Amino acid sequence: MNAPLPTQAMRKPLPVAVVEKLKSLFGERFSTADAVRDHHGRDESPYPPLPPDAVVFARSTDEVADLVRLAAAHRVPVIPYGVGTSLEGHLLALEGGISLDLSQMNQVLAVNPEDLTVTVQAGVTRKQLNNEIKDSGLFFPIDPGADATLGGMAATRASGTNAVRYGTMRENVLALVVVLASGEVIRTGTRARKSAAGYDLTRLFVGSEGTLGIITELTVRLHPQPEALSAAVCRFPSVRAAVETVIQTIQLGVPVARCELLDAVTIGAINRHSKLALPEAATVFFEFHGSPAAVKEQTESVEAIAAERGGAGFEWATTPEERTRLWTARHQAYFACMGMRPNCRVISTDVCVPISRLADCVAETEIDVAATRARIVARSPAGGLPVTLLGHIGDGNFHLGINIDTANPVEVEEAENLNERLVARALAMGGTSTGEHGIGLGKLDFLTAEHGAAVSVMRTLKRALDPGGLLNPGKVLRAD
Amino acid sequence: MNAPLPTQAMRKPLPVAVVEKLKSLFGERFSTADAVRDHHGRDESPYPPLPPDAVVFARSTDEVADLVRLAAAHRVPVIPYGVGTSLEGHLLALEGGISLDLSQMNQVLAVNPEDLTVTVQAGVTRKQLNNEIKDSGLFFPIDPGADATLGGMAATRASGTNAVRYGTMRENVLALVVVLASGEVIRTGTRARKSAAGYDLTRLFVGSEGTLGIITELTVRLHPQPEALSAAVCRFPSVRAAVETVIQTIQLGVPVARCELLDAVTIGAINRHSKLALPEAATVFFEFHGSPAAVKEQTESVEAIAAERGGAGFEWATTPEERTRLWTARHQAYFACMGMRPNCRVISTDVCVPISRLADCVAETEIDVAATRARIVARSPAGGLPVTLLGHIGDGNFHLGINIDTANPVEVEEAENLNERLVARALAMGGTSTGEHGIGLGKLDFLTAEHGAAVSVMRTLKRALDPGGLLNPGKVLRAD
Repeated sequence: MNAPLPTQAMRKPLPVAVVEKLKSLFGERFSTADAVRDHHGRDESPYPPLPPDAVVFARSTDEVADLVRLAAAHRVPVIPYGVGTSLEGHLLALEGGISLDLSQMNQVLAVNPEDLTVTVQAGVTRKQLNNEIKDSGLFFPIDPGADATLGGMAATRASGTNAVRYGTMRENVLALVVVLASGEVIRTGTRARKSAAGYDLTRLFVGSEGTLGIITELTVRLHPQPEALSAAVCRFPSVRAAVETVIQTIQLGVPVARCELLDAVTIGAINRHSKLALPEAATVFFEFHGSPAAVKEQTESVEAIAAERGGAGFEWATTPEERTRLWTARHQAYFACMGMRPNCRVISTDVCVPISRLADCVAETEIDVAATRARIVARSPAGGLPVTLLGHIGDGNFHLGINIDTANPVEVEEAENLNERLVARALAMGGTSTGEHGIGLGKLDFLTAEHGAAVSVMRTLKRALDPGGLLNPGKVLRAD
Repeated sequence: MNAPLPTQAMRKPLPVAVVEKLKSLFGERFSTADAVRDHHGRDESPYPPLPPDAVVFARSTDEVADLVRLAAAHRVPVIPYGVGTSLEGHLLALEGGISLDLSQMNQVLAVNPEDLTVTVQAGVTRKQLNNEIKDSGLFFPIDPGADATLGGMAATRASGTNAVRYGTMRENVLALVVVLASGEVIRTGTRARKSAAGYDLTRLFVGSEGTLGIITELTVRLHPQPEALSAAVCRFPSVRAAVETVIQTIQLGVPVARCELLDAVTIGAINRHSKLALPEAATVFFEFHGSPAAVKEQTESVEAIAAERGGAGFEWATTPEERTRLWTARHQAYFACMGMRPNCRVISTDVCVPISRLADCVAETEIDVAATRARIVARSPAGGLPVTLLGHIGDGNFHLGINIDTANPVEVEEAENLNERLVARALAMGGTSTGEHGIGLGKLDFLTAEHGAAVSVMRTLKRALDPGGLLNPGKVLRAD
């Protein structure tokens, strides 16, 4: 959240010709109602909304192409929209324009169980997908918490709890249908598991946040549902002990499916939010997938590693109900954090470091959080700063949930500075400013700090593929 | 091999100023000797060599940048060269210019065992790397057969026998140092396991075959050496039975590390080449990695699946010596194929299809091979056409080794037509023209057949990043 908030002054009204044409093309699926526009000008970030001038609900790739061509002809920005769960201001209409809602493109087009692939429209959500394919014996593992659309998840290169074993959207997208800035439609990739045929356009669009083209269809990998599945909760004497346990687990090649760290504050918050009674200590939620023998072997290995570091209370959740309760609580952590103070918003940080540096990065960050909180209380007696820490620590990725009162400028300033120091710390350790949330509007300056001269290559690509600068302008890179 | 061979007429001599400057910069590491130029104007493809005008042996990224800037100023092409093991004419100097030999950039720069990463110069070969890190408990799994450089493997998005479990270069490269066409040096990515920070430049350069920039350093993932390792050889009554066994293995989620199909002709060739006495039948070489219990479980699963399809003679090679003998023989298959006829060259095809179509693709191809051979014998009594078939079938990828007498135009024509039909068959089945060898010069037309309108996006990227068209011109895309 390091970009100054833009003003509405950059906005030009939609040309009348565009409005008339959109009405005729989309009928009731074209809207300029305030409520609809407001809903589409925000995401889950703390940014106040910047609504688009209009919203269009598309139902096919052809409709998207029609819209993009029309918008290009009139130099109107287009901002693709899934279900609005992004976290870095990706959906704000910085220059007005049209929000292109893809949530009605929600058809699962082809399940190929023999090939472990599925082709979907971009508006299919991950829960919908897993529900529709549950009888195939396969599942789609990427789980960013929110029930995001697959198009949105590809656009932000999402990952989440299962990435340590199954990879991120980068590894799991095989092919895309993309509408280019010109309105031309291309297919990237095939259904083959690998290819050396030309430039990797699939990976270029994955993570491009709607700024290089609009993803309308995806073919993604599926994975066999594990024969056996077991979850465990383990408490540690410190965050460092928890992190070191996971580091050694990874280094030994134990194919753990999930390992999620939650600090004592987070456990307290989810206890209250989800009516649990977990001891309020640094805790790791583990999940193991495989054959019954493999799961047993993995869990025994991890239990032994944890015990050496004071890990206690390996509690097993082997029934689906217990597991669901546990992971639902984990997924509610964001809302649990929000619930710690009424009417506040949460800044979710997102650094990812090499795992050898993770324990240090977390420890230094905990000290910084305590100092920041003390400074806020000194500067602003009404202030506070509840901060939760949780992480996909098998990947070296962790989030602070910084719960700010946006009406208190001291808190806002200190929280932003805390995030900046955190990013600088991660970069100095060979890490990245964002493991999975993306750049959006919130991390524009961090992109430069992280990539240096490579940002000019990104700008070259943007200019080459979107010369008019109309696709989600001002995200990933500042508008020219 | 579908591109007409270019003539030497496109060549302009190197400007004298360039020659003088290169002499002063590189001394004895600059050469225009015929033998050196000839060696650098060829690869392992059947193309006759097209030597560059000069060869430069670089030792640092700065030297590469100096060379590229000098070449750009004088509009001289630059062709990066590793150890010359590519298979599609990647290294031929279509427009003359300078071959940039990176094999002396062979330093392992940093091993980070805790993070399972290593940073190397581009000229480090995979065997050298594994030798240098063998005491770390880790290994680098990508194994294309040849002892290629990591820079070359990244540039062609190589994979090979272990990809079914460990992925390809696409999944295993974390970050690159790249010299751009301008001579500017950029770093893509960090050492974090994942990132959502901006466009995926790493994946853009991986597979770009030296046409968008020159890779001089790589950070790649390492993997823990498996605690237990077992190899097995299994004969099948038909290629189809072998393929179906592997398909079911993959669909059940058995994490097999390698599964390589060799048809009866290939087995015969490697028997003669490597002094083995394997029964000449369709055969799969399996390898299993994991804990002792996991390896046992995997092998029992696969043995049961194979038995249902007539797989017989599951022969175990559990000692390192036996395994090495087996895999050495497998890796010698290319040379074994070459040894089937003296003074011939081998066209290696490379399609990859969704695994549900693999059995059909192989069966139709076997029929096509038999018909092609019959046609050749009818047209050219001296002709023949030994064809071996082997494949990384867990990925749906298989190669024909078509052994042609390049002096016999009937064989050359029939072999090229056979490959074209094979590619068309794979594309019609939702596959790709090249699973791992790349486009080079040999598959330019196939790229268009496979990607359609997306090729124009590739051309846009090429023009944006190499506006002078001087980086490995005429590869991946025809020169403008």
